[in-house]
Amino acid sequence: MGEAAGDALIVFTPSGKRGRFPLGTPVLQAARALGVDIDSVCGGRAICGRCQITVGEGEFAKHGIVSTNSHLSAFSAVEQRYDDKRGLIPGRRLSCQTRLLGDVVIDVPPESQVHKQVVRKRAEARAIEINAATRLHFIEVEEPDMHKPSSDLERVYRALDEQWRIKGLSCDTAILRDLQKTLRKGEWKVTAAVNTRTGGVGNRLVALWPGFHDKAFGLAVDVGSTTIAMHLTNLANGDVVASSGLMNPQIRFGEDLMSRVSYVMMNPGGDREMTAAIREALNTLASQVATEAGIDLSDILEIVLVGNPVMHHLFLGIDPTELGGAPFALATGLPVTCPAKDLDLKLNPGAYAYILPCIAGHVGADTAGVVLSENPHESEDNMLVVDVGTNAEIVLGSKHRLLACSSPTGPAFEGAQISCGQRAAPGAIERIRIDPVTLEPRYRVIGSELWSDEPGFEEATAGTGVTGICGSGIIEVVAEMYLAGIINQDGLVDGSLAARTPRIEPYKRTFNYVIREGEPRIMITQNDVRAIQLAKAALYAGTRLLMDKLGIDQVDRIRLAGAFGSHIDVKYAMVLGLIPDCPLECVQSAGNAAGTGARIALLNTKARDEIEQVVRRIEKVETAVEPLFQQHFVEAMAIPHKTAFFANLAQVVSFPAPKTIEPPEPDGGERRRRRRG
Amino acid sequence: MGEAAGDALIVFTPSGKRGRFPLGTPVLQAARALGVDIDSVCGGRAICGRCQITVGEGEFAKHGIVSTNSHLSAFSAVEQRYDDKRGLIPGRRLSCQTRLLGDVVIDVPPESQVHKQVVRKRAEARAIEINAATRLHFIEVEEPDMHKPSSDLERVYRALDEQWRIKGLSCDTAILRDLQKTLRKGEWKVTAAVNTRTGGVGNRLVALWPGFHDKAFGLAVDVGSTTIAMHLTNLANGDVVASSGLMNPQIRFGEDLMSRVSYVMMNPGGDREMTAAIREALNTLASQVATEAGIDLSDILEIVLVGNPVMHHLFLGIDPTELGGAPFALATGLPVTCPAKDLDLKLNPGAYAYILPCIAGHVGADTAGVVLSENPHESEDNMLVVDVGTNAEIVLGSKHRLLACSSPTGPAFEGAQISCGQRAAPGAIERIRIDPVTLEPRYRVIGSELWSDEPGFEEATAGTGVTGICGSGIIEVVAEMYLAGIINQDGLVDGSLAARTPRIEPYKRTFNYVIREGEPRIMITQNDVRAIQLAKAALYAGTRLLMDKLGIDQVDRIRLAGAFGSHIDVKYAMVLGLIPDCPLECVQSAGNAAGTGARIALLNTKARDEIEQVVRRIEKVETAVEPLFQQHFVEAMAIPHKTAFFANLAQVVSFPAPKTIEPPEPDGGERRRRRRG
Repeated sequence: MGEAAGDALIVFTPSGKRGRFPLGTPVLQAARALGVDIDSVCGGRAICGRCQITVGEGEFAKHGIVSTNSHLSAFSAVEQRYDDKRGLIPGRRLSCQTRLLGDVVIDVPPESQVHKQVVRKRAEARAIEINAATRLHFIEVEEPDMHKPSSDLERVYRALDEQWRIKGLSCDTAILRDLQKTLRKGEWKVTAAVNTRTGGVGNRLVALWPGFHDKAFGLAVDVGSTTIAMHLTNLANGDVVASSGLMNPQIRFGEDLMSRVSYVMMNPGGDREMTAAIREALNTLASQVATEAGIDLSDILEIVLVGNPVMHHLFLGIDPTELGGAPFALATGLPVTCPAKDLDLKLNPGAYAYILPCIAGHVGADTAGVVLSENPHESEDNMLVVDVGTNAEIVLGSKHRLLACSSPTGPAFEGAQISCGQRAAPGAIERIRIDPVTLEPRYRVIGSELWSDEPGFEEATAGTGVTGICGSGIIEVVAEMYLAGIINQDGLVDGSLAARTPRIEPYKRTFNYVIREGEPRIMITQNDVRAIQLAKAALYAGTRLLMDKLGIDQVDRIRLAGAFGSHIDVKYAMVLGLIPDCPLECVQSAGNAAGTGARIALLNTKARDEIEQVVRRIEKVETAVEPLFQQHFVEAMAIPHKTAFFANLAQVVSFPAPKTIEPPEPDGGERRRRRRG
Repeated sequence: MGEAAGDALIVFTPSGKRGRFPLGTPVLQAARALGVDIDSVCGGRAICGRCQITVGEGEFAKHGIVSTNSHLSAFSAVEQRYDDKRGLIPGRRLSCQTRLLGDVVIDVPPESQVHKQVVRKRAEARAIEINAATRLHFIEVEEPDMHKPSSDLERVYRALDEQWRIKGLSCDTAILRDLQKTLRKGEWKVTAAVNTRTGGVGNRLVALWPGFHDKAFGLAVDVGSTTIAMHLTNLANGDVVASSGLMNPQIRFGEDLMSRVSYVMMNPGGDREMTAAIREALNTLASQVATEAGIDLSDILEIVLVGNPVMHHLFLGIDPTELGGAPFALATGLPVTCPAKDLDLKLNPGAYAYILPCIAGHVGADTAGVVLSENPHESEDNMLVVDVGTNAEIVLGSKHRLLACSSPTGPAFEGAQISCGQRAAPGAIERIRIDPVTLEPRYRVIGSELWSDEPGFEEATAGTGVTGICGSGIIEVVAEMYLAGIINQDGLVDGSLAARTPRIEPYKRTFNYVIREGEPRIMITQNDVRAIQLAKAALYAGTRLLMDKLGIDQVDRIRLAGAFGSHIDVKYAMVLGLIPDCPLECVQSAGNAAGTGARIALLNTKARDEIEQVVRRIEKVETAVEPLFQQHFVEAMAIPHKTAFFANLAQVVSFPAPKTIEPPEPDGGERRRRRRG
């Protein structure tokens, strides 16, 4: 591969793209001509430093060429100035300033690529490709000329077309306000932010700064009923630069979703109050993360939101009353793209909001976020994705077919309506083991690594005390009670054990299991066990219903999303029958998958198209009208003992032998439930 | 043309479209199948009454068929109900309820056509075809069904698609707020307003009413420096149902444009004050016209605005400082389509605003409106369109080539900076004649039909008195002074005439012409004549400059737009040389053409496309940088006496013989100007 007079071969790695260019061609220009993905904000003016490359030196056998630094123009004064001012890693060059003088291999490091990939913590999670809706473009705008009258905005558009090939531009009236001052302050050199996905409006000029500006951020927000989580993300490289969370201030209107819907029903205008509260909270969080990251609110150009249907409606300013009763009609489930200011959000005045689509009346944009994060729609085998909160959202299927439903688990899994239950916070029991012989418990609390029977536990927990049991602890204690034979398959506490240990104590007509004496005294009551049974029955019934619809008897992979899913020990969830049997190594926690989904949608517009398409083809199942759901629910009240069915679990857990406990005189409800079960 | 068994021929007039349809086919359905333009809001439910037709009875030789009422289904109970409730002209049928039973000729009256034409007062003006951006559509929406979960909005979109074939819909978040209540209040029957032209967003659902709603209005607004004129227009038929005007409240910040720009320069934030003032005035006017027409503000779905560049910038919220000095750069001259609420306008929350494009820094959206009204861009011959205000906007050309400029005439033509000048108001002299022998004047004032030398004049004007001279009166008096030989071609008052009449009286070193003794004493001073000369020289120089650019020596037609253009006597304008010579019958007043242009753009979206395209191809000429303009200006100071040049005018006016007046000792400026002239 010889060198023709006047031109040279350039090969880019890792893309492998190659071509011949006249000697003297800037490397960035060659890259563009070949469609090699190299970033740039300043458009080749040695300002932004985004276009850095390294030279593949030495003999490159596979390319059959000799690549040396001497085949490129010498390190220039312009590059030296950039290096002095902002620093260049040794060996790096600015591709806009480096000219081709001979055959060469150029390596484009990942951080110089526009469509770079964001590394995710979990190995099994798919990488996020960066393809943000909003990008910055430094432009030099022609000055006004009386001989060729044209408006400043037209010349800005022309510069974006000529210097960046961006056509079909429009802008909001708000941007016109400071347009002329900005142009003159920047001496006709400005940085324009262009958003390519603003709901069909084409390319939208959303912000303009005098001179060179290299800060473009977005917010990914998960609006939960209980907490709001916000991540400030750099739109150029996907880095989360600050995160913050806040209790949802709507809690003062009602602890759970339905009590908030009731509040609206009983207080006309209550929805406006709650809308104002959530929007104010979003503004508070935005200020916090901006301050933490040392950026200005005006550097925030996008926000992507997810939330369950009630939260979705409330932050959009929609009265959620219809979601409070059958037929649970959403006002809209369609994706929403709108100016962030329409949602009273005080970011850059040109910032846009994107809200993921809802799937159904009980399966919201948060579940769409979970789907985007866990991508069951691209799975070859059948995947079960469960997000447990007050309701459990369940998605089941594969690339071939995907179903979703919501199941009313109630708040028991979150520690609510459990006698000693509490939110996950320091002092809460999160792990527990019960000795099947002595029935003595040992446990760990959040905030300490020590077990309660280890030396120093009391000292380690002196600061918080042992205050209650959180959701994951409740699952463990009920499962351990079952494995220790304290409760039977029907969930009934064996009162006869009171003879063996004072930890089993009579209470009204039932028995408690006392975990800890002291203040507070911590125990599990028969009602607590019942509450967990009801919750897990609902969860299992929903999953089972979708399995029926899909015609399968077992799932290949399980993802547990949300805070609950992150903290529970999968084994215990399976002992209790929250989830169907599955090889344990195929069950994984997905963390805050809804929030991750929001971040993916924030960083990649193609992901928005993708989730919009996926949501349209997800089959929505409404459990309330499915007779099978009721049947599965009743059947799932019992704690499973089908080792054949739970084949995978049986390998790691010894199930107690089936045992009939003579119950104390049950009340009517107790009797009725047992008869059904 | 026989009748085949089972079907029949239907011929529509005036379109002439025809086809055969099975017996029993509703006439509206046949019309739609043939693409016959019949209106309907209710979609064939006998509610709106828009689809009325009449039967062409008797023998229709030209169609070769017998058309009788018996070839249609009998007047139905449904039609009777409509007739009882809302009234039907005898002979009229509702085409949605009338079925074909035999060959028939159907006449579609103009008011039943969607694209009906609006009649304009002036015979030469082109008709306005109705093709509004926003139309109403009555729909029946599917109720929510838990077995097929979908959101209310999706079902609204589906109904619009299935019942009206409207696809690609989106909506503002504001409409989501009341969506669910509206659907339920209307028992799933609602009227949707869809705007097809909202800046690239496709079809936008902008409003929703429960049940049937048949009110859709728009505002056409001309924001002038002095007055704001608003017309409330029915979007369905183009009727102007109410009009109102208001002094521009910005006048308190400065009488003319430049003083308002100065106000902003000297008072930071002054532009915000003026923006707020103009928007508040628009809201006040909107309330007035809505009240006058007996409609709700929420029935106003569109607003179209025109204004000069400074007004344009101020109502868009843009600081107009840059327009105050060279290079007179507009922030934007592009057409603006935005939610009306972005301009703080309190109409229907979904209403959209459209602002016509500006042509150049001194030639605004008002001139674009004038062009749309007078359509020089479709003219075969060369047309001159002049809109005179503080500046004169001048458009010259034809379908082949069109040029525009602005010329700084100053406020003299509006009666300002004239010693006895005043705005056009009762009591102002608007017509005047001077006897060339006695030099005695006679005149008429606004508010009276009598001339001052007719009996009863004093009584008729006793209410107002004679208070001053308005713009058109000033033109006439200076022209009459010239024709009577009181001033010569240089505009100098002939002091020697003081010997003949006391109406010529010395004043400082010059002479006045006294029109009326009394309180106030009304006269024309030498300076007044000079002010008019300067103004008319500017106007003529602008026109002449464009004629030079176009390479023509005379124009074929002239339109005078604006209040000034409506009131002046064309003959006098030509005597003074405001406009070039042209057959008098080819010079017409265009009234408030800018406002008419706004109304055309309001009623017809194609007109918006048209003016946007025309504005792009208009050649902008900046008089400030054209040396030729200065030259023409100096030359045009003199009052023309070129009967050869003003051939057309010479046929109706006797020009005085050229005469040299010995001037009194002129001051330096006077001398300098004369030397040049």
